[in-house]
Amino acid sequence: MQVIEYPKKMQELSEQLRREGKILGLVPTMGALHEGHLSLLRRCRAENDLSVMSLFVNPAQFDRKDDLAAYPQDWEGDFKKAEAVGVDLVYAPTAGMMYPEGYQTYVEVEALTRRWEGASRPGHFRGVATVVAKLFTIVKPHQAYFGQKDYQQALVVQRMVQDLNLDLEVIILPIIREEDGLASSSRNWNLSPEERCAAPVLYKALQAAEARVRAGEQGAEAILERMREIIEAEPLAEIDYIACCHPMRLEPVERITESVVFLLAVWIGRTRLIDNALVEVPAQA
Amino acid sequence: MQVIEYPKKMQELSEQLRREGKILGLVPTMGALHEGHLSLLRRCRAENDLSVMSLFVNPAQFDRKDDLAAYPQDWEGDFKKAEAVGVDLVYAPTAGMMYPEGYQTYVEVEALTRRWEGASRPGHFRGVATVVAKLFTIVKPHQAYFGQKDYQQALVVQRMVQDLNLDLEVIILPIIREEDGLASSSRNWNLSPEERCAAPVLYKALQAAEARVRAGEQGAEAILERMREIIEAEPLAEIDYIACCHPMRLEPVERITESVVFLLAVWIGRTRLIDNALVEVPAQA
Repeated sequence: MQVIEYPKKMQELSEQLRREGKILGLVPTMGALHEGHLSLLRRCRAENDLSVMSLFVNPAQFDRKDDLAAYPQDWEGDFKKAEAVGVDLVYAPTAGMMYPEGYQTYVEVEALTRRWEGASRPGHFRGVATVVAKLFTIVKPHQAYFGQKDYQQALVVQRMVQDLNLDLEVIILPIIREEDGLASSSRNWNLSPEERCAAPVLYKALQAAEARVRAGEQGAEAILERMREIIEAEPLAEIDYIACCHPMRLEPVERITESVVFLLAVWIGRTRLIDNALVEVPAQA
Repeated sequence: MQVIEYPKKMQELSEQLRREGKILGLVPTMGALHEGHLSLLRRCRAENDLSVMSLFVNPAQFDRKDDLAAYPQDWEGDFKKAEAVGVDLVYAPTAGMMYPEGYQTYVEVEALTRRWEGASRPGHFRGVATVVAKLFTIVKPHQAYFGQKDYQQALVVQRMVQDLNLDLEVIILPIIREEDGLASSSRNWNLSPEERCAAPVLYKALQAAEARVRAGEQGAEAILERMREIIEAEPLAEIDYIACCHPMRLEPVERITESVVFLLAVWIGRTRLIDNALVEVPAQA
């Protein structure tokens, strides 16, 4: 497994491989790899001639310095896991290589970023869109893999790729969950044992919402109210937002007549977790 | 000379040509071709295996609707001129192809766009950076050519290419002037005969500035004052801005001890013209 640090070196290698007709896949990560990442990496390896993992904790997407400082890091473990699933190349630049002195260009996706994570974390999606655009121009993948766990992020990246005519396909893979339903996330590493026990409450709320929709309930507010009750019953949990939205535009939906996505962000102690569920409406009898 | 309208078709052709090892050059234009454009197209043809001219009047870079409506257009003449200088391929999309419904992604270059054209034309450089990024991802050139006449634009594009790691070289070519010194510009087409007679006043002011610097004058304000006098002596002219700046950062310079660029924007009747001069400071005796 090769490790490349310099953007120009990575780009030259990718350009050469593309000219040789090789198909390149990219999984962008911020390290602290978990089963969700590994599912992306395995799929990337299976579908491409060369699978690249980027490893870069992007300062531009953190709205709070303490959040950046607390982000879990385990490079040694990450390299081992990446090698074990067959990653061919790790692109791991420093912050100074990605944002050298005088850096001043940013990519903004507008409507899709106004609500939810965009509203709770000002500047977050600007940082995401910018770094992902840069990773795409540096690594030049034919396909890039993202997890559905960061649902809004996945839509923002797809929209950016379409709008800026970036020549690649964005592939979104399902959420990987632990046995008790907690969505795999690097942030789970920061949970204390008690918090870890409380954390599946996000999934419980999503399951309740899904069951209600399957049972034919169409009023979003009644379902959201039930979700709030479930989460508020957990003393360590504090809701940031819960929403029932159009699955592509992410605008709130009041009456559920077509597929919707339930999005939620919940603080468990000092750790903020997000989760979501895409729910189909049952066919009418 | 081939003409392509669809972004995807252009991109697929460029990708194929790159895989065949061909070197591609791009000259982005908004049509209404003049000698300045032709100098870029000739150089592009000489330095590349395939020379592409894009022809797209980009609505996103016009801050005023009347300015967009008044922008000169002569597609038939443009195609003839392009063919005559040996352009291989014209990429000419419609606005709907570049900005389809739901479009919402923009590229912003920050510090460099705050002053001068950026201040006079809000949103202008956001539109420029966005469309140029898109043209680069669609046409995939190895080299792209811009005129020094739009000095700030050229710096903004270079900065964006560097910051977003776009894999191409931006080449800036000198201003082409008419016999009386007026810089070639599509906007010159909108001048009445009297206005056309008045328009060289921009160049006269720049020449005066250059002579003063060559004579050893170091005070920028005295030189700018002399430039203002020259322009204000012309009844049809009205200054938007005149500035003496650092040639890379475009911040105002008070004491001229190194190279500077003089930038100016002047209304001649209802037409706004810009011009500039990069001036070296003479070596000390």
